[in-house]
Amino acid sequence: MSAALNEGLKLAARPSGLPKASDWSHFEEPVAAPRDGEVVVKVLYLSLDPAMRGWMNEGKSYIKPVAIGEVMRAGGVGKVVESKHPKLEAGNYVTGMLGVQDYAVLNGDGLHKVDPKVAPLPVYLSTLGMPGMTAYFGLLDIGKPKPGETVVVSAASGAVGSLVGQIAKIKGCRVVGIAGGPEKCKYVVEELGFDAAIDYKLEVVKDGLKQHCPNGIDIYFDNVGGDILDACLSRLAMHARIVICGAISQYATGAPVKGPSNYLSLLVNRASMTGMVVFDNAARYGEAAREMAGWMKEGRLKSKEDIVAGGITAFPEKLLMLFKGENFGKLVLKVADE
Amino acid sequence: MSAALNEGLKLAARPSGLPKASDWSHFEEPVAAPRDGEVVVKVLYLSLDPAMRGWMNEGKSYIKPVAIGEVMRAGGVGKVVESKHPKLEAGNYVTGMLGVQDYAVLNGDGLHKVDPKVAPLPVYLSTLGMPGMTAYFGLLDIGKPKPGETVVVSAASGAVGSLVGQIAKIKGCRVVGIAGGPEKCKYVVEELGFDAAIDYKLEVVKDGLKQHCPNGIDIYFDNVGGDILDACLSRLAMHARIVICGAISQYATGAPVKGPSNYLSLLVNRASMTGMVVFDNAARYGEAAREMAGWMKEGRLKSKEDIVAGGITAFPEKLLMLFKGENFGKLVLKVADE
Repeated sequence: MSAALNEGLKLAARPSGLPKASDWSHFEEPVAAPRDGEVVVKVLYLSLDPAMRGWMNEGKSYIKPVAIGEVMRAGGVGKVVESKHPKLEAGNYVTGMLGVQDYAVLNGDGLHKVDPKVAPLPVYLSTLGMPGMTAYFGLLDIGKPKPGETVVVSAASGAVGSLVGQIAKIKGCRVVGIAGGPEKCKYVVEELGFDAAIDYKLEVVKDGLKQHCPNGIDIYFDNVGGDILDACLSRLAMHARIVICGAISQYATGAPVKGPSNYLSLLVNRASMTGMVVFDNAARYGEAAREMAGWMKEGRLKSKEDIVAGGITAFPEKLLMLFKGENFGKLVLKVADE
Repeated sequence: MSAALNEGLKLAARPSGLPKASDWSHFEEPVAAPRDGEVVVKVLYLSLDPAMRGWMNEGKSYIKPVAIGEVMRAGGVGKVVESKHPKLEAGNYVTGMLGVQDYAVLNGDGLHKVDPKVAPLPVYLSTLGMPGMTAYFGLLDIGKPKPGETVVVSAASGAVGSLVGQIAKIKGCRVVGIAGGPEKCKYVVEELGFDAAIDYKLEVVKDGLKQHCPNGIDIYFDNVGGDILDACLSRLAMHARIVICGAISQYATGAPVKGPSNYLSLLVNRASMTGMVVFDNAARYGEAAREMAGWMKEGRLKSKEDIVAGGITAFPEKLLMLFKGENFGKLVLKVADE
């Protein structure tokens, strides 16, 4: 095994705005031999997430920044090819922070076994992975939806947004999605059962919200920040809850973050805006995954993955799709066949 | 009685930025005769509040805008001089929305009797009035202070801020005030018992927060918005609560409100930002006033009023003191001797 070659990408420089080619350095080295407790995982799929852009910044955040010269952090799913961990053996499928590389050698304690018979492997990076957990805990624990309430979600056809909307429907809410382009808007309404969609590329979001949320917004699940956050702030219902999950419109501009100028709507409407980080709910991931797997089985929750090919060297280019709104569903990079 | 003259001010135009002389129209007319249920109140003191600037704007807010041509809304304390209300009689002291005028003729149901033997009349516009209720419910119900936590309050020597800090001390918190000028800073530390003060006119607020809040900010009670809100966002502790009470730095600029660019700190720190409007707590004002009167009696809560003379015609000029940070304690306009 240790004769195999591990190809991967390290962070070479901290990007300003969108990461460019020179922010990455390519490496190729023999796969290290696992020490006691470690396993060698062949990476099959990697999760491409907006949060990755934040991990590349210096400074205090909810997670340590990726260091310059470190293998780029990435969640992934793979197959154990060699194990010195008591609970894992060759042939097991696992998820965890595998990094942007072909083979991850890491302590087995940080990995979770997954079953390809329960769901296809990429779904463990999607509905049954971090995006699923984010949607589930952000909507249910912070948003606290009540039947009949109006829920608005941005990046509505994305990994998190599509699940937020579907879970809100399961909870009896009226759901309005904001997405870019007619295809995505059609998808969330016709395939996912949202009550309405606003195409932010074609429509004035504020007008769309006025039309589709006649009684105001009770919960806004924000994945994008910027002007769309401001538009939603201007249409809050009394005691509205805003879940701050991300701000993809602000990650890659290279300019300072645009603060929400309409934030005083929180005062007028006695509303709140609360930040969330999915990792805080780790102890309850199992419970959430079981409930969501149940909904999937019943056909009430659809999981959509946008699987792109190209392997490790395609990572820099495919990551940018997220910031251009080019993905449709959870963006997953296929790294290797089994 | 109906022969007496009522002098007052109506809103003549909607101001842009700070209100100017031409935004007001002066009137003088005979005092109207009270109808059944109404009383005539001689206005003794009027409350000058930052919120007044908001009431002058058109558009949906937590309270109806003052109409053009309407007597300017103002809370006040006065003496009943004539009554056709079953529960009030001449000689009673009352508080309520009396308006910027010498005599208010209004339904007695909207008035509350007050007792000048319990506290001097201006205190009913201060600690035992709207600012007191705002501090009490905003800090305790939204901030939810726990002993040992760090509470930061802006406009710390003002009507609301000075009470927020003192109540937080009573609840066992470490309290840091932000105020303008050495006199106000000295006052909140030496007279009110705050642990530290930051002079935003002399110091870099962010540096001051770093020095005085080594473990971050657990509760930030925001009266000012703008750069100070952003500085506090950059120093939040995990699970911090921001109470949005007002944004005086933003009311009078005439420019669009500056949104807090550091709002993503809510995400990083799993923190929340919640708006409040004091009127929502009306049913519990009595309970709060009793507790605060008790603290005042025990010498644990100091009420400071900045009483300015000049009567009704001085209102436009004295109101501006608030936006220039010229008041020191709750700003109250003395309208008349009893």
